Amino acid sequence: METVKIAIMGFGTIGSGIAEVLEKQRNVIISRTGRVYEVTKILDIRDFSLHPMKDRFTKNIEDILNDDSISVVAESIGGTKPAFEFVMSCIKAGKHVVSSNKELVATKGVEILKAAQEAGVGFLFEASVGGTLPLISSITGILQANSISKIDGILNGTTNYILTNIEKKKISFEHALERAQDLGYAETPDPSADIDGHDAARKIAILASLLYGYHMPVSRVATEGIRGVSSFDLELAQNLNGTIKLIASCYGDNYGQARVSVRPAYIFKTHRLASVDDVNNMVLLDCNMSGIVSVYGRGAGKLPTAAVMVGDIIELTQRSDFSQLLWDSELVLDADRQEQPLRYFVTVYSDNKKLITKLVEQVDAGSITDNSAAFFTSRIMRSEAEKLKKKLETYNVTVKLYEVVEE
Amino acid sequence: METVKIAIMGFGTIGSGIAEVLEKQRNVIISRTGRVYEVTKILDIRDFSLHPMKDRFTKNIEDILNDDSISVVAESIGGTKPAFEFVMSCIKAGKHVVSSNKELVATKGVEILKAAQEAGVGFLFEASVGGTLPLISSITGILQANSISKIDGILNGTTNYILTNIEKKKISFEHALERAQDLGYAETPDPSADIDGHDAARKIAILASLLYGYHMPVSRVATEGIRGVSSFDLELAQNLNGTIKLIASCYGDNYGQARVSVRPAYIFKTHRLASVDDVNNMVLLDCNMSGIVSVYGRGAGKLPTAAVMVGDIIELTQRSDFSQLLWDSELVLDADRQEQPLRYFVTVYSDNKKLITKLVEQVDAGSITDNSAAFFTSRIMRSEAEKLKKKLETYNVTVKLYEVVEE
Repeated sequence: METVKIAIMGFGTIGSGIAEVLEKQRNVIISRTGRVYEVTKILDIRDFSLHPMKDRFTKNIEDILNDDSISVVAESIGGTKPAFEFVMSCIKAGKHVVSSNKELVATKGVEILKAAQEAGVGFLFEASVGGTLPLISSITGILQANSISKIDGILNGTTNYILTNIEKKKISFEHALERAQDLGYAETPDPSADIDGHDAARKIAILASLLYGYHMPVSRVATEGIRGVSSFDLELAQNLNGTIKLIASCYGDNYGQARVSVRPAYIFKTHRLASVDDVNNMVLLDCNMSGIVSVYGRGAGKLPTAAVMVGDIIELTQRSDFSQLLWDSELVLDADRQEQPLRYFVTVYSDNKKLITKLVEQVDAGSITDNSAAFFTSRIMRSEAEKLKKKLETYNVTVKLYEVVEE
Repeated sequence: METVKIAIMGFGTIGSGIAEVLEKQRNVIISRTGRVYEVTKILDIRDFSLHPMKDRFTKNIEDILNDDSISVVAESIGGTKPAFEFVMSCIKAGKHVVSSNKELVATKGVEILKAAQEAGVGFLFEASVGGTLPLISSITGILQANSISKIDGILNGTTNYILTNIEKKKISFEHALERAQDLGYAETPDPSADIDGHDAARKIAILASLLYGYHMPVSRVATEGIRGVSSFDLELAQNLNGTIKLIASCYGDNYGQARVSVRPAYIFKTHRLASVDDVNNMVLLDCNMSGIVSVYGRGAGKLPTAAVMVGDIIELTQRSDFSQLLWDSELVLDADRQEQPLRYFVTVYSDNKKLITKLVEQVDAGSITDNSAAFFTSRIMRSEAEKLKKKLETYNVTVKLYEVVEE
């Protein structure tokens, strides 16, 4: 039986998960592939001299690069330094690479994929976007004859967990964040990568790059996090038959005209994304031939993610052509990116009850409490929505705008 | 640029859809794959002498078999005669084959996959189960490091359309069936393949074969259709916070112990499958490493299905190894297949109001109207449920049993 030798770079949660999955699922994998996948080298700067696999550890990347028996390398270091340099070295040494590192793929994907093509090896990164969701493999696999003009998704488990908790347990954002930190979902002390939408922005940038064939820089993703979402907003949304979720979207048929964004948005309870609770992820793909296709699963977690990376490792040893995973360097964008008129869900707060009553008379408010009101606008441009917000704020009330994401 | 030459066998709805997708998406496919995929021969016994592609038609399979420039053949004849013979001939002639033909795959999959392995070509059939859902490609792709011990799915669009209509429009089964026939969803005059569960049984048999690595004959799938589901049952289910769907399931860790079934079952409104309306399909995969993964999309339709077949065609030209798609011939089953205790949703009808009142006193009925009642049992074995049904029937009432499918 053929043995495929693997190296793991970075033996943290995900890296050790890969070794665990290969061990636990050894017989399943043999029966499906007719091959044994074996970890022979592990790169980590920390001390693992007491680990059962201690003989396989190294602190020197050269030990992997110079070992010709290693055909696939799994990168789970995270960040770009030294992950980028190491990945490039592995590729140049003729090794396939898999990665779950969204920062690496979002910022360095162009260069890595180009190097992989030149070296005739593959670089797969399913787990970098949406954890366990069969997303990249579907876009570049059975859906590759489709043009996908619209993606809406929940791509960050941490913020979804926090919003679910604020809504169901009627607790504050700060309290829900603490809980997420206690459970290890959000980072301590700085949860900014999740909370401020950067993580989701990286993921939607990767998807956009795949769809349009051009590198979509994360800096071009209009990104807004969930710090401003209060339990009052969620209650008003509920009263109007909806909820608020952090939605990552990519609309448009080509790179120059695309709108790529991450923002807390209002969705109706009947929207497929509304039922996605806790740390789960879901993505809806609007395919021009095959219609709406959606995938759902856990967005993160040690074994769930590691198993998907092992799936990628096996894929790499079964493929002969990796042309479907390649995108070009950044294009110069058209100045006038398409702006669509949208409906907005608007929440208004004031301690002054009379003011609320007065405002309610002016706008057709759908949900009213003593000190708050909420309503929908008709389809208007963003600039008009901002104008409306400014006008309302002249009454000395707190106003928030949420895009309405429709199915 | 490389040109991949394709033949289509059977130029009905799906076959002509393949040609249409290749034409409409030509530039997208070129930009993603660097290849042109071109239909050079079409096999059909009907007369297409006025068709724009008339020069490519043939009535003789030999014209495809003897054309060495053709590397992939798409089978969309349907049924097994002459599809099986033609597919085997193509494979033996060294051509990859894709198919959307569930009857062919469910009954002849073992032989076809074995022949494909011997010939060193691929046989892909994503569209045969769940139309546009990235299902087989996920099971054999990014989820292949997982053991999947449970599948629950809605795999037949026609019956789901009928049940959705009975529920929402409160019409009879017969009326809903007529509507489905008018829209071309159900076949006329004999809709039995859909209505009696055979179509879903073929699909779950294919999935079970993939999971366990042994051919699961359709005859071993415990199959019950939707003819017995009345609008009253759906109303009682709604009153008890649920609905009735035709659910295809596969439970168990290995072939001998597996329970594979298709039956109308009760599911709670909070169950992910409850929100699947009309002709859509959804499948939940319970993966031992990656957790619940679900896929959703259109179960059928000309372009949706054809585009997925084109996805398979492209896949075949990018792979070097098809070992992940292979299953062995039938094993002898263990005599004692695992039977789990389950909850049942029981509906009872009678024109005799007093009888209903009397029965309600005996069982803890959760939903009662003048002439009907419905309740849940505790977890009991199927034999006990049947005994209960018999006992209730001694009161001369109509009794129906539905398994409760829990998430």
